[in-house]
Amino acid sequence: MITSTANPRIKEIRKLRERKERQATGLFYIEGLRIVGEAVQQGARIETLISAPELLISDFGQKLVQNHLEKGGQVLEVSEQVFQSFSLKEGPQGIAAILTQKWTRLADVTAQPGDCWVVLDSVADPGNLGTILRTSDSTGCRGVILLDQSTDPYDPSCIRASMGALFSQKLVKASFDEFLQWKKSSGIGVVGTSDKAEQDYHTYEYPRNLAILMGSERQGLQPRHLELCDAVVRIPMVGISDSLNLAVATAVVLYEVFNQKQEVA
Amino acid sequence: MITSTANPRIKEIRKLRERKERQATGLFYIEGLRIVGEAVQQGARIETLISAPELLISDFGQKLVQNHLEKGGQVLEVSEQVFQSFSLKEGPQGIAAILTQKWTRLADVTAQPGDCWVVLDSVADPGNLGTILRTSDSTGCRGVILLDQSTDPYDPSCIRASMGALFSQKLVKASFDEFLQWKKSSGIGVVGTSDKAEQDYHTYEYPRNLAILMGSERQGLQPRHLELCDAVVRIPMVGISDSLNLAVATAVVLYEVFNQKQEVA
Repeated sequence: MITSTANPRIKEIRKLRERKERQATGLFYIEGLRIVGEAVQQGARIETLISAPELLISDFGQKLVQNHLEKGGQVLEVSEQVFQSFSLKEGPQGIAAILTQKWTRLADVTAQPGDCWVVLDSVADPGNLGTILRTSDSTGCRGVILLDQSTDPYDPSCIRASMGALFSQKLVKASFDEFLQWKKSSGIGVVGTSDKAEQDYHTYEYPRNLAILMGSERQGLQPRHLELCDAVVRIPMVGISDSLNLAVATAVVLYEVFNQKQEVA
Repeated sequence: MITSTANPRIKEIRKLRERKERQATGLFYIEGLRIVGEAVQQGARIETLISAPELLISDFGQKLVQNHLEKGGQVLEVSEQVFQSFSLKEGPQGIAAILTQKWTRLADVTAQPGDCWVVLDSVADPGNLGTILRTSDSTGCRGVILLDQSTDPYDPSCIRASMGALFSQKLVKASFDEFLQWKKSSGIGVVGTSDKAEQDYHTYEYPRNLAILMGSERQGLQPRHLELCDAVVRIPMVGISDSLNLAVATAVVLYEVFNQKQEVA
């Protein structure tokens, strides 16, 4: 059992809070019974399971550790104090894990009829991204394509907000040009949203093979993104505000797409 | 100009970060050009406008201060350092305000045909509450009724997420019993949401005079809340998760109600 917070492995775990460390190593950190359980269930690749026996009183948690050991997995035992040194939670449950990031290459994405992808340009808030993953999972989307400068889906705030959907949804990173190429070769229909569009999101009939393109929190879609869209729809707003929260706007469109599919089916 | 961070008035401003201070005084703090501008435009009652001339370089901001003075309002001038001592922003813009909280009594709420209210039981996250206010504004709702133990709409995270909708939406606090009484006397239709309901939220026809009742992030609606509902609807979910983010779920239902109203009109 590791009892020193200065242990090099413990230092590495703490460093995973930083995006540049996550990028350099291709790893990320998750914590808590629910999310570790979800990772196991979804078959995510766990590099190291971390257990603080003094804190891990849950039967479910103890079984997770035991099963991982039985499958030949690595378990790192640490003292309560060491666990607290990297924990991101108030009232930590004594279980965490280091996982390998899983990215899908855009070139490997084949757009099948009935598929829906969410494409986000320059999403800035990891909580929004996590909430969008949660909704894209709930509406049966395949995953999220992150264009250009987007926040990191392996940020702890995103992981927390995604409620496990991080493991069920495919994650793709692409430049604008790569996405443009892929759109042409895949024949996918790209529908953007803008408060300046004329087409109501609710009366528009979405293509069967679809990517919903959403702009950033601050600026919405840039002109070059609007240009590549096959259609641009507007979510009506009758109050004082001229925009919705990004995760809310995405959800409103995704549930419209979902409902239209149900009606066809 | 106040130049000491130990000045009693400055201490009072800093204390407004705490809920119990906001409750005791009935005041709250807002900061930044956009939200202060929105408060003025929506006719919110500004007790004191706070200006740090060294930071306030915006023409729009300087005009807000000038107009407030011309209307006989109080302006508190502070040094940059003092402003930084209570500022909640990175890169503060040098304008803030202390406002009086505005609560509507449930007894004064008359439910008119076409009105929609959002009722939240024990909402815990102020960011969720702010996002819900923003969406309820956008869909033309009248306001939000907070039941029992709810987070404070005057929490800075809620104010930020509401994007000004805090000033356009009515805010009501009520106990469960008060709400039950009001439901009976007002004749409003209460529709709850639950993942266990059979009625799809999208195929249900919402009453014209409507309150949408949402449970807490952790537990959803409690049995006694479900019991008082005239109908309970379910938002379908096809992924690994059995729930949506609260602000997302609320938005999905509110836009369904909004769309149904448009189709009738």
